[in-house]
Amino acid sequence: MSYTYEYPRPALTVDCVVFGFDGEERALKVLLIQRKGEPYKNCWALPGGFVGMEEDLETAAIRELKEETGLSNIFLEQLYSFGQPNRDPRGRVVSVAYFALVKHGKHKKLHATTDALDARWFPIKQTPELAFDHANILKVALERLRGKLRYQPIGFELLPEKFPLSELRHLYETILEKTLEKRNFRKKILKMKVLKALDEHQQGVAHRAARLYSFDKEKYEQLRQRGFNFEL
Amino acid sequence: MSYTYEYPRPALTVDCVVFGFDGEERALKVLLIQRKGEPYKNCWALPGGFVGMEEDLETAAIRELKEETGLSNIFLEQLYSFGQPNRDPRGRVVSVAYFALVKHGKHKKLHATTDALDARWFPIKQTPELAFDHANILKVALERLRGKLRYQPIGFELLPEKFPLSELRHLYETILEKTLEKRNFRKKILKMKVLKALDEHQQGVAHRAARLYSFDKEKYEQLRQRGFNFEL
Repeated sequence: MSYTYEYPRPALTVDCVVFGFDGEERALKVLLIQRKGEPYKNCWALPGGFVGMEEDLETAAIRELKEETGLSNIFLEQLYSFGQPNRDPRGRVVSVAYFALVKHGKHKKLHATTDALDARWFPIKQTPELAFDHANILKVALERLRGKLRYQPIGFELLPEKFPLSELRHLYETILEKTLEKRNFRKKILKMKVLKALDEHQQGVAHRAARLYSFDKEKYEQLRQRGFNFEL
Repeated sequence: MSYTYEYPRPALTVDCVVFGFDGEERALKVLLIQRKGEPYKNCWALPGGFVGMEEDLETAAIRELKEETGLSNIFLEQLYSFGQPNRDPRGRVVSVAYFALVKHGKHKKLHATTDALDARWFPIKQTPELAFDHANILKVALERLRGKLRYQPIGFELLPEKFPLSELRHLYETILEKTLEKRNFRKKILKMKVLKALDEHQQGVAHRAARLYSFDKEKYEQLRQRGFNFEL
């Protein structure tokens, strides 16, 4: 089979940047796959692939993510389209990148199939060399993530349902790459009124088990729609 | 000439949403072109067209904008990629949309060539029926513009170099679609310290000629990089 057009056309792909926060390792991680075929055979890359002709862009991204990593039921947000003429050795390939924040604990088990030999979570500080311009796509996604901290509390998507305040602080510290003063962070985050203090404490901690919190989704949505500033 | 591929490929276009603020008419306007050819012949649309194989996406957007409207030296920011399978009657066409804010007064004169019969500024409240899914692209661009107001004072790009405070207020009122209390607006906007009060007043006004202001670009950049909240 072959397809003929009057004018040349770039090929179109989607790529997915999926971030998770590993609370135990206190590390922000990104989901990568190892490529089965050329180009960049055996090299690590963002999950992704070619868009089908009957498929919209987001559907293609969800399908590729599922096929190559086993992850499903992920909310993907469009990040940016990358179209440098020389970004792919196969010729002109334009890629629409998508972006997701997930609860790492829920998606620890990965399952690589189709074009992927392997799928793994890598701390963003220790990623292997990436295929194509994927290091740049990852960089743009990290900037978007940091920008988001300015106008929404992103812990909601990245943390487990119940967490001690320290875990939220570690998340902010990891993303912003700076240390936040403990009491000041506590004061500011509680002032936002998007957290619910639960009548539960950490399990398996001998001394000073910390209180657990959860996000108040309703309050959060109300504030977000009023344009509330969530900045720390 | 024809081009043959092993797998089918969507065609790739770029479209540009260019906003200007007409201070005299107190109207936010969008730049549209009238299409010369099918599909949607004679219909109004966003300026745009097919991406060349050697051209990156932004270069294609800049070229199409220049060809169809005469506008050049415009800073375009990527908005979003639109890829619904049925958005174009010619078959699968994916479009990467770009977005710009310009000083309307500087770009009043338009010059339509190539695929455009005409190019005009339309108040966003009085746009004609648009080709393809361009009404939706325009809607997404307006949401982005309103979202931007939350974290940067956008008047900088849309207003002339010197302006009375009332003009900045009218701009905010137009974009936010609500009336802002005069004294309160004045207080809040001056508190941001991004405006310079000039020793100049409005010309051609008999009574109470208002003081003119300009944006302090340096201060503005400093604040923006520190993550300052510009919200009103």
